[in-house]
Amino acid sequence: MSAAFDDWMKTVQAGSENDLSGFLPSSDTIPAKLHEAMRYALLGGGKRVRPLLVYAAGALFGADAATLSRAAAAVEMIHAYSLVHDDMPCMDDDALRRGKPTVHVAYDEATALLVGDALQSQAFLVLAETATVPPARVAAMLRLLAHASGSAGMCGGQAIDLDSVGVSLTLEQLECMHQLKTGALLRASVVLGALAGKELDDTELNALNIYARAIGLAFQVVDDVLDATADSATLGKTAGKDAADNKPTYVSILGLAPSRALAEKLRLDAHAALAPFGEKALRLRELADLIVQRKA
Amino acid sequence: MSAAFDDWMKTVQAGSENDLSGFLPSSDTIPAKLHEAMRYALLGGGKRVRPLLVYAAGALFGADAATLSRAAAAVEMIHAYSLVHDDMPCMDDDALRRGKPTVHVAYDEATALLVGDALQSQAFLVLAETATVPPARVAAMLRLLAHASGSAGMCGGQAIDLDSVGVSLTLEQLECMHQLKTGALLRASVVLGALAGKELDDTELNALNIYARAIGLAFQVVDDVLDATADSATLGKTAGKDAADNKPTYVSILGLAPSRALAEKLRLDAHAALAPFGEKALRLRELADLIVQRKA
Repeated sequence: MSAAFDDWMKTVQAGSENDLSGFLPSSDTIPAKLHEAMRYALLGGGKRVRPLLVYAAGALFGADAATLSRAAAAVEMIHAYSLVHDDMPCMDDDALRRGKPTVHVAYDEATALLVGDALQSQAFLVLAETATVPPARVAAMLRLLAHASGSAGMCGGQAIDLDSVGVSLTLEQLECMHQLKTGALLRASVVLGALAGKELDDTELNALNIYARAIGLAFQVVDDVLDATADSATLGKTAGKDAADNKPTYVSILGLAPSRALAEKLRLDAHAALAPFGEKALRLRELADLIVQRKA
Repeated sequence: MSAAFDDWMKTVQAGSENDLSGFLPSSDTIPAKLHEAMRYALLGGGKRVRPLLVYAAGALFGADAATLSRAAAAVEMIHAYSLVHDDMPCMDDDALRRGKPTVHVAYDEATALLVGDALQSQAFLVLAETATVPPARVAAMLRLLAHASGSAGMCGGQAIDLDSVGVSLTLEQLECMHQLKTGALLRASVVLGALAGKELDDTELNALNIYARAIGLAFQVVDDVLDATADSATLGKTAGKDAADNKPTYVSILGLAPSRALAEKLRLDAHAALAPFGEKALRLRELADLIVQRKA
């Protein structure tokens, strides 16, 4: 990674943290405990991969900062709510997230349920309040986010994931599950960032979909590799959990070295898809590199 | 209730059932189990009070049926998701809803969590897909629904409710809790229906807010009266649960007869607020009567 990329990334991450804080009610607004727990779930950590994708894609067509900040915050709120609910005892039952106790551990299960529910509403509110692009574009962005979040996207992927425990999946089934569970929201991040700049034609949308599909899969392949090889302290969450939970992973199906090779192939696919955008796609290319080469 | 009102109500309820079914993926769409469970949670029952309010308010300014059907479905999906999550063991732990096993009983807790999450996304998707009013109005409707659903509305009210178990609330605190927990979404139903017809001026919005506030409170007062006096078979849910859970209610604070008198006063307040709208508010007036005079 170049120093310039590193600086850009730190700037977006710090800016996102600031924006997310501003787009949430303060922790002394009634109901105070709920708002405090929402802030606990959303702020002070996370790699902010989705905001980074929003801003990187925003550079393609010169999107303005105000629109990008709302799109980035909305998609990160959806991601954060899904983590809160995923960590609950009836789902993954995880006690550690981003190096901190999960919300149901730090508060209680009922609060965690409401924190997730309220963060989802807040995501749509923040995006619906966008006043810096024409309303028709706002509505299109809302449709995109709602579709990526629901049963045809993230929630659907989680449902397939639940039914996959102890089941022997084919590579195609595993890919389908991940394209919904994590891929849909990563794709939404890329397309939201681009849409913040202008309406997209089919060629542009197609190229971005190919890029997003490649990095979405790469993200999951690398997650599985890290889960199998890194330790909990480095990950900030419990390592080795997928194997312990008997969940199918790329590593369990393909093996470790082929999984690493697949991630590298997907990185190159992502680069190729961006060729038509030239230099304006620099940050998107670098993010593909980051996703594949990250250590946590 | 007049026979004409009864016919109108049955028509809206049947139409809503049909619309809700059409706005959900079929139960053989992948992930099939999630979609089947979403349909189980949303279809085949319920009084459809919120759709009735949407359609009744739609009559004020001649809203078209296509817009009303999306607004009604969206608000009912939010309501249905909140019931699924409310019934979960970490919240109210209720086994019976609308005379059927609750979602986490009929399926499992993880599925119930995802059903609620996906129904919330679907609500925003269905509303965002409205193409029969200008996009600026669609965005305003989305802001209204998101605000009413989140931490400043329904979720916030549930958080206050959670913290109120075993606590001695004043009448004002109880009212504040209910204005968020159920009032916010009832108010959104009324305003969404009106907004489906035209942009509202401050006088119109103010009158509708007074009406919605009155019926929202009346709804809860009557709920508390029924919880204290009706049986589970009539209610289609577990009766006497609030008292058993040591939750503050209008009946526990005011007593039974004063609670009934309060509901009647609120019904008259609701009627008074509708005076400026004349005959076009007929269905809204009749709904205020229904809410106060219902037996379940």
